[in-house]
This record gives sequence, structure tokens and C-alpha cells, in this order.
Amino acid sequence: MIKVKAFAPASYSNLSVGFDILGLALRNLGDIVELEQREDSAIQIKSIFSEVDLPEEVDKNCCSIVIKKMQEACASEIGCDIIIRKGFKAGSGLGSSSASSVAAAVAYNALLGSPFVKEDLLEFALEGEFLACGARHADNVAPSLFGGLIMVRSYEPLDIISLPVPSELYAVTLFPDVEVKTSESRKLLPKQVDLSVLTKQVANMAGFISALYEEDYDRIADCLVDHVAEPGRKSLIPHFDEMKKAAMDMGALCFGISGSGPTVFSLTDNASVAEDIKGELESIFANSPIQANCFVEKLEESEGAHIIL
Amino acid sequence: MIKVKAFAPASYSNLSVGFDILGLALRNLGDIVELEQREDSAIQIKSIFSEVDLPEEVDKNCCSIVIKKMQEACASEIGCDIIIRKGFKAGSGLGSSSASSVAAAVAYNALLGSPFVKEDLLEFALEGEFLACGARHADNVAPSLFGGLIMVRSYEPLDIISLPVPSELYAVTLFPDVEVKTSESRKLLPKQVDLSVLTKQVANMAGFISALYEEDYDRIADCLVDHVAEPGRKSLIPHFDEMKKAAMDMGALCFGISGSGPTVFSLTDNASVAEDIKGELESIFANSPIQANCFVEKLEESEGAHIIL
Repeated sequence: MIKVKAFAPASYSNLSVGFDILGLALRNLGDIVELEQREDSAIQIKSIFSEVDLPEEVDKNCCSIVIKKMQEACASEIGCDIIIRKGFKAGSGLGSSSASSVAAAVAYNALLGSPFVKEDLLEFALEGEFLACGARHADNVAPSLFGGLIMVRSYEPLDIISLPVPSELYAVTLFPDVEVKTSESRKLLPKQVDLSVLTKQVANMAGFISALYEEDYDRIADCLVDHVAEPGRKSLIPHFDEMKKAAMDMGALCFGISGSGPTVFSLTDNASVAEDIKGELESIFANSPIQANCFVEKLEESEGAHIIL
Repeated sequence: MIKVKAFAPASYSNLSVGFDILGLALRNLGDIVELEQREDSAIQIKSIFSEVDLPEEVDKNCCSIVIKKMQEACASEIGCDIIIRKGFKAGSGLGSSSASSVAAAVAYNALLGSPFVKEDLLEFALEGEFLACGARHADNVAPSLFGGLIMVRSYEPLDIISLPVPSELYAVTLFPDVEVKTSESRKLLPKQVDLSVLTKQVANMAGFISALYEEDYDRIADCLVDHVAEPGRKSLIPHFDEMKKAAMDMGALCFGISGSGPTVFSLTDNASVAEDIKGELESIFANSPIQANCFVEKLEESEGAHIIL
């Protein structure tokens, strides 16, 4: 039996100053989609390993939808059974459906003999995610597929720009096990912002992008600030202010909400500071009834989603 | 008699996507301030060559205010007579008072034996401009002083970042001789903007900065768009839409309002396109009762304000 397996990383979207624009791929945390080629052309979900119930109907699951779209696009007869291994909880704000959609696209492309380039796979993953999940979140799909730090400059037309990732960058991810409904989180966004807020956000984005090209960590820290989403959304995240103060006091470059939460992240240019931040964040939840998982990764301009053995 | 003369360039502030943030220095258009050292320590305005009446009282003129501040700061006894030669009309939206303030600071520093570095001169020029003109417009003062393309990332604390200037960049400047009061122009700005407008402006700024580092002219053109100030302010500028269409049709990278107008500018990466745009813009005003002056310059990462002989 022919089998292929692909890994696609989780990602932080809405990266601080980059509301709806910037997404940063992780490296180790992510989803694995395994495909077993069938004798016929059917596409079926065989099993899903996930903490949260995910749809097993072929027309409702991200992975099968993406694969069906790809199968149609190249009029292929190659069917498969799909095994989905979630590396993290759906609804955590880390681009769960994007990681699964991307892993499915990369795996099925391999099964087909790689007729598609990554830019094609982006379109399939986006369409699949839209049909299954209601939104074309390119700021999760693109970093998961391409890896590294991605800017979605425009949706119409889609313009995806890969940005330099500083050579020393450590990500601390903390997932507090509370439910944040995207619809609730959306309601906490301002409909309008003052002109002065716009100017600050635009200026910080300008400074951040220049800092990436110049690898200027101090400037990165000055600019990774969220004046738009965080003020409203942080109320949904337990101990947010306490965690942020702890991380920033320890010298973090930034601390913010991933996607619409509840996952939070902190970036630093120092491996041991990253471990210290992890320790501090964990200690905040030590006596809390809310369970939290925290982990550290070194980020790089990675290859993004890829076939694994 | 000891004499020094300094030139400081005009500048485009509010550069399209960079409302209140980006300023671009010109090279040839600007003000000259000439100082003649006196026997005593007095600071006096000797003459002003300007189309518009400018204050000759020492406590109201940008140049003399800047020089007095510098004189106080280093407890100098060196006095001077000031001759101001405006290279362009005050109130045109090209940073007139900034150019004069900066030229005065650079000239007086030379007279003092250069005790100050450019960063110090920035503070003096800003303070002088604030006292004389009511605002610390760093997005005109900084490009005039340092040259090139400048980002004012933050005012508190002041954070000025010099950006790369693409190697092939031609600026077409058109000044239509109408009066635009800054207070009127200010009223045409939105007090608040929709979240979607913020996202577009932030994304275009992100794209623009990355395009500068990668010298990607297509992306520069995609991103140099103004969703904030131009929609309201263009009504103050005669033939704005007609000029913009003409310039963009000829392949301009962008077309926008300099400062709060009435001067408009267009950028292109091609010298002959720049001349063609100039011709088109001039033809629009050929039968208009409004007089317009138009000129083309090649821009570079220039030295900014400097001593001339």
C-alpha cells in the first residue's frame, strides 16, 4: 500500500502589530496528515486523533475537502483514506484548521506525483479552509505552508510576501485550556479606531519590517505592540496582564495573543530567557484551576509544511 | 567678515501610505540660509527673499529662533545676521519652515565650529519650528536634515529611522498656486477610520518597507496608496483626479499629496517617464487660470542639509 505523511506547523496569526496581516510559523508544533492510497478513487476519513471532536464527513472536514478539490482540479482517479493526527487542540488560536488543510494538500500532492507547486497548494488549502471553516485565513494558511514569517499584503488580489526571520528567535507558546469562541472574540474588536491609533499601528509596522531586514532586536521589541485587538481581547484570556508583565520584565521582545486566542506567545532573542519566561508563565498557572501547556521553540526561516517519513 | 551658507531641501511629508510617518527629501529644491558673523552676540534677520511675507521679528522667525536656542545651549557669544533665501513658496506643503529651520541650524553649527552632531540639530530645528510654527513636524524636519527617506516611528520618545532609497527614483513635483490652509486641510481628515481601512493601510506600509529593502518597484507601486488623508484632502487641489489618472496611466509608481497640499508629487523609476508625466501635468494646467510649477528631480540617499560655498 502506498502511504504518504505530511507535517504542517501551527502558526501565530495577528502577530502583535500585524492584525489580519502577519503570521509566524512554528516548527515543531503542528498537525500530521497521513494518506493511504486506495484501489478506487474515493476520498474517506479513516481516523482522527484529536482532543476535540472534528467532522468525519468528507464534505465537512478541511482535509478531505482540500483533497477533493485537488483531485477534481487534475481529474485524478487517485483515492485515499485520511488519517489526521492533531498536534494541538482545535480552537486554540494557532491555526488548527489551516495546519490540517495544508498538511492534507502537501500529502495529496505527493501522492499525485507533485503536479502542484506550493503557490497552487495555497489556493487549495485556502479554498478548503473556506468551505470547511467559513473563512480564507491566509495569515495562518500561508505561514503553515511556506514556513517562517509571512505578510498577507492583500486578499484581492492575494499577495503573500515572505519576510526575513531574525537568526536568534525563540518562541514561548502558552495554551490555557479555556474555550474562546471566534465569534465572541470578533465582537471585542473595535469597529473603528481613532486616526492616532491608526498612525501608531502603521508606524510600528513600518519600524518592525525595517527591523527584520536590519536584524535590530531592540527595534523589534519597540514595534511589536498591538493597539488594535489586544485591548479588547485580552479580557478573554485568564491572567493575561500578569503573564505579559512577567514576560516583559524578563526581557521578552513581545507578548501577545495568537490569532483570536486563547493561546498567547512571547518572543525573545535568547534561549535561556525563553526558558525562564516559560517557567514564570507556568508558575502563574500552578495554582489555577485552569490547565495550561507551555513550550519553547527556536524559530527559523523553515521550509514550512513538508513530507515526513 | 565670516560668512556661512547652508542649503536644506524641501520634503514630501505624509508620503502616500505614510500619513504622519514618512517624509522624503528632495535634492535641488530647498532653502538657503546665509549667516554673517557679527562683532556682538546679537541675532538679527537681515533680509528674507520670499514670495510670501515671513516674520522678520527675531522671536517669530523659525531661523532666528533655532539659532537663539543653539546659542543659549552652548552659551556662545557668536552673533549673526541672517539672510533667508526661500527656494519655494511657504505654505506649499513641502515643509517650508522645516527647510528654513534646518538650514539655519546647519549654518549656525558651522559658525560655532560644529559642536553639534546632526541628531542635536534635529532637536533644535524641531524646537524652533514648534515655537515659530506651532508643531514639531519631524516628518519634514528629519528628511530635510538627514536627506533621503525618513520614518518617524514615534514622537514620544522621538524615534527616527532612515530607510533605503531605491537606486532609480525620479520625483515629479507640481505646485498649483492656490492657498490651502493647514487648518482647513486638517478638518478634512477622518477622526476615526474603519478597522478594514486600518488593516489596508498597515498592510500597504508593511509591503512598502519590504519593497524598499528588496528594491521591488512593482511592490512599491502596489503599496504607495493613501486610504486615509487623500480621499478628503484631494478636494482642495485643483484637477487632482485628472492629474492622478494621467500620471498613473503613464506608469507612475504613485501620485499623491505632499504634506497637507496643495503640492502634489509623482514617483517613477524611469527618467523619461518622469519627463512625460511633467508634460502631462503641465498640459492639464495650460488652459487653467491657476498657475502651476512643475519640475523633475532624481532622488538618492542624499546627504540632506549641508554647507554650500
